[in-house]
Amino acid sequence: MSDLILHILYVVAITAEAMTAALMAGRRNMDWVGVCLLGAVTALGGGSVRDVLLGHQPLVWVAHPVYLLLTAAAALATVAIARFMHRLRPLFLILDAVGLVVFTIIGCNVALEMELPVVIVIVAGMITGCLGGVLRDILCNEIPLLFRSELYASVSIATGGLYVAAISFELPHDAALFVVMAFGLAMRLLALHFNWHMPKFVYTEKLH
Amino acid sequence: MSDLILHILYVVAITAEAMTAALMAGRRNMDWVGVCLLGAVTALGGGSVRDVLLGHQPLVWVAHPVYLLLTAAAALATVAIARFMHRLRPLFLILDAVGLVVFTIIGCNVALEMELPVVIVIVAGMITGCLGGVLRDILCNEIPLLFRSELYASVSIATGGLYVAAISFELPHDAALFVVMAFGLAMRLLALHFNWHMPKFVYTEKLH
Amino acid sequence: MSDLILHILYVVAITAEAMTAALMAGRRNMDWVGVCLLGAVTALGGGSVRDVLLGHQPLVWVAHPVYLLLTAAAALATVAIARFMHRLRPLFLILDAVGLVVFTIIGCNVALEMELPVVIVIVAGMITGCLGGVLRDILCNEIPLLFRSELYASVSIATGGLYVAAISFELPHDAALFVVMAFGLAMRLLALHFNWHMPKFVYTEKLH
Repeated sequence: MSDLILHILYVVAITAEAMTAALMAGRRNMDWVGVCLLGAVTALGGGSVRDVLLGHQPLVWVAHPVYLLLTAAAALATVAIARFMHRLRPLFLILDAVGLVVFTIIGCNVALEMELPVVIVIVAGMITGCLGGVLRDILCNEIPLLFRSELYASVSIATGGLYVAAISFELPHDAALFVVMAFGLAMRLLALHFNWHMPKFVYTEKLH
Repeated sequence: MSDLILHILYVVAITAEAMTAALMAGRRNMDWVGVCLLGAVTALGGGSVRDVLLGHQPLVWVAHPVYLLLTAAAALATVAIARFMHRLRPLFLILDAVGLVVFTIIGCNVALEMELPVVIVIVAGMITGCLGGVLRDILCNEIPLLFRSELYASVSIATGGLYVAAISFELPHDAALFVVMAFGLAMRLLALHFNWHMPKFVYTEKLH
Repeated sequence: MSDLILHILYVVAITAEAMTAALMAGRRNMDWVGVCLLGAVTALGGGSVRDVLLGHQPLVWVAHPVYLLLTAAAALATVAIARFMHRLRPLFLILDAVGLVVFTIIGCNVALEMELPVVIVIVAGMITGCLGGVLRDILCNEIPLLFRSELYASVSIATGGLYVAAISFELPHDAALFVVMAFGLAMRLLALHFNWHMPKFVYTEKLH
């Protein structure tokens, strides 16, 4: 039951991530191919980096190309409805938070199935949740937002940590999943609302 | 027969890609090591990304290091003949188009041998054809040209699609290869000549 | 014996690399999460790229997550002691040179154990020694220093070449390791001191 919900939320979240990335492509005047590629890389890139680093073959979109087509199509559709997107901004911020939490849990699950150490389980969750946005920012020639935005990677790490704890205490799976998702979602939305940030490290001397 | 021609064109194309990348390194005042590295990464990077994503080991240049030496040497040689390169510009634009088509077909072949889905065959072709240039642009700190240039990824996708169709109709291999290559080459050169572009997506509102 | 020293120097070097990367994160006002991530990616990225390209699973930090925690912690600790770091500059330049040589030898060893061709052994050393810094520069939105700094990749290639030669001549392992490390370290420190550079390739005409 909870696995079905997780899967549905995954599909919703990759669609939303692709659409948000499409807007970023539009702000850089990319062409339609660039829009599709940036959408697909952003939505599926985190899971791909995780699988490449963990040696977990085949990658999700190689085994299920439908996700690739879905994200490319969602990005392209965004071109048509771009003029309404600013009204949907609150919705997409929530969907992005859902994606962060769902991707994190799915990433943890992959590492758990491979019986990797706890630290790697949490890192696998964080890579899945956050790396898509890092790839997007590199392709857009920006310093990744992840490195200086409101709590984002931290939410992913906390969510993954709580999930691993819930599993090690052998909580009922459905209940654990619900609690962890609610926690991660709340933490991210509160961080957005109250503009919580990690402290910044400001260093002005030149080393090199 | 056609496989031999494909192989010869592959060697010519990686050499040409390495030399074009060397010029780009020169415009950023990189040193000779940077020139060699950028040349090799541009020429062999697309195939490497494909193999890493598909879990197709060993990578071409690991199994055949001669390609690595060839591309590094070609990039370095470009330093010596740079003053004549602007006269060769038309030749290198044609060789770049040949490379795009040949890399695409080789990428499709790798995915076909792994018996992957049709969508992934075409995507494997596109990654092989286009990702070297994306890596080059990232290393040069530019937004990838691929995302906003004349038809490039589109040519690769169309070429791959036609190739997959030809194979599924069981056309004679040599004839299929010839037709597909002629199609891809013509499409790319016409796009260059007439300055065909994909429509751009221009979005000016801030989402974040 | 020499293997133990190599291992100790490896641990010292990844710690130092993470701390230097943390300063670079600080100059870009990244937050604490960004500092940890940039530190870990810089210190462990070269070996990770090598393992992904060679299909050498599992990656070092996946098998031994303690290295991941160590580098993240070292990067974070740098925030606290940043004000003293400029006095330690000479120490960190030496540790960076040690890291370059040690990473190179370790990378060569991985490729040697996989019985790869000599060229690939040397390239594996260079990737291990140099790619962490390239990833750091890409994430900081800079053209990689590697492509235009004093002898760095060249030191790695020369060190790897000498190491492969020493192995093929079947020199005693401990002696070989000592000589190769002394050579690489001397070459790098002399390059730093005398400001040796590879010749630059300056090309001003536009090809595209």
